[in-house]
Amino acid sequence: MTAEHTIQEYLDVLSSKAPVPGGGGASALAGALGGALGMMVANLTIGKKKYADVEEDMKQYLEELQGIRDDFIRLADEDAIVFAPLSAAYSLPSATEEEKAYKDEVMEKNLLAASLVPIRIMEKTGRTLEILEALVSKGSRLAVSDVGVAVAFVRAALLGAVMNVYINTKSMKNREKAEELNQYAERMIAEGSAHADAIYEQVLASLR
Amino acid sequence: MTAEHTIQEYLDVLSSKAPVPGGGGASALAGALGGALGMMVANLTIGKKKYADVEEDMKQYLEELQGIRDDFIRLADEDAIVFAPLSAAYSLPSATEEEKAYKDEVMEKNLLAASLVPIRIMEKTGRTLEILEALVSKGSRLAVSDVGVAVAFVRAALLGAVMNVYINTKSMKNREKAEELNQYAERMIAEGSAHADAIYEQVLASLR
Repeated sequence: MTAEHTIQEYLDVLSSKAPVPGGGGASALAGALGGALGMMVANLTIGKKKYADVEEDMKQYLEELQGIRDDFIRLADEDAIVFAPLSAAYSLPSATEEEKAYKDEVMEKNLLAASLVPIRIMEKTGRTLEILEALVSKGSRLAVSDVGVAVAFVRAALLGAVMNVYINTKSMKNREKAEELNQYAERMIAEGSAHADAIYEQVLASLR
Repeated sequence: MTAEHTIQEYLDVLSSKAPVPGGGGASALAGALGGALGMMVANLTIGKKKYADVEEDMKQYLEELQGIRDDFIRLADEDAIVFAPLSAAYSLPSATEEEKAYKDEVMEKNLLAASLVPIRIMEKTGRTLEILEALVSKGSRLAVSDVGVAVAFVRAALLGAVMNVYINTKSMKNREKAEELNQYAERMIAEGSAHADAIYEQVLASLR
């Protein structure tokens, strides 16, 4: 779904009050763009005599990044799939005790589903950053700035996705599960943002 | 150009070794996505009784963000336009003194042009962040997480674009001009990333 829109269509529907795509899907798209930029760097390195000794590594990164990029796009689609029923659940009636109990049950199930997709987006940024770090030292020097841009995108995917964990866990009645997800997300943010910043600094150091 | 591609086409050409789009255009796209997410928040606030007193502000933000979003897309196109001749200039012959002098001249002109587009992308993030900050306090609470995602995108636009300033100024012969651009970019990074981080923390505080 996400992949077939033109960029203008995507921007227009993202800008609108339509329930999807929202911040979760956009965060996944940021991850896909980061992966694509990493692929570009690998592609610019492959076939160059100067980088012949890392050619096999580059081919492996390229293949892995393509899988990551495509997974991110699938996660953007899944985010839309899990958000639609959650968005509908917010409008369920809650006048009687029975209605309230039913609404709570539907909300809880959908809040959990809507928290798990951004968690998976976050998980996917870890390996992406590892490959980007390898590209800083092994990839074509002419494209090192693009690794920096890729890192900025992956960081945005991570910090964007966690917003969608927190906004959903916030309303969950099962506080134990909510806290477990929040703490897992916090650990990924702490590690991932530090890793992203360190790689970005390495790129900067090679440019200035 | 950028706006008419499907997302899949854009990702595929970004991933390839084609000279454009590259990190500069992608950074502008990040800005457009951030602007679009801000528009969504304004759209989700407009028409709601609870937020009637900020309705006029929201309409103004919406209009301004649409202009910003469209400007970012135009800058993505411009980045491609200025990069094409620079990419070609790298391949000019430089065997004789005359060829070398000509190549230097063409390179210098195109390096400057290719530095100025990301500078303009960076400049555009400033006002975007101001509006996003206003949306944190005035916009619908239900959409506050999307402001956080928007901020992550705008930060990526800023930190991505500066990479394309540095990689181009690095090769400029006019070191005075290069340093002037670098210092201007550094100031924007220092202010903009601190501003982005502060807004993101505000969003986080309202979510946890």
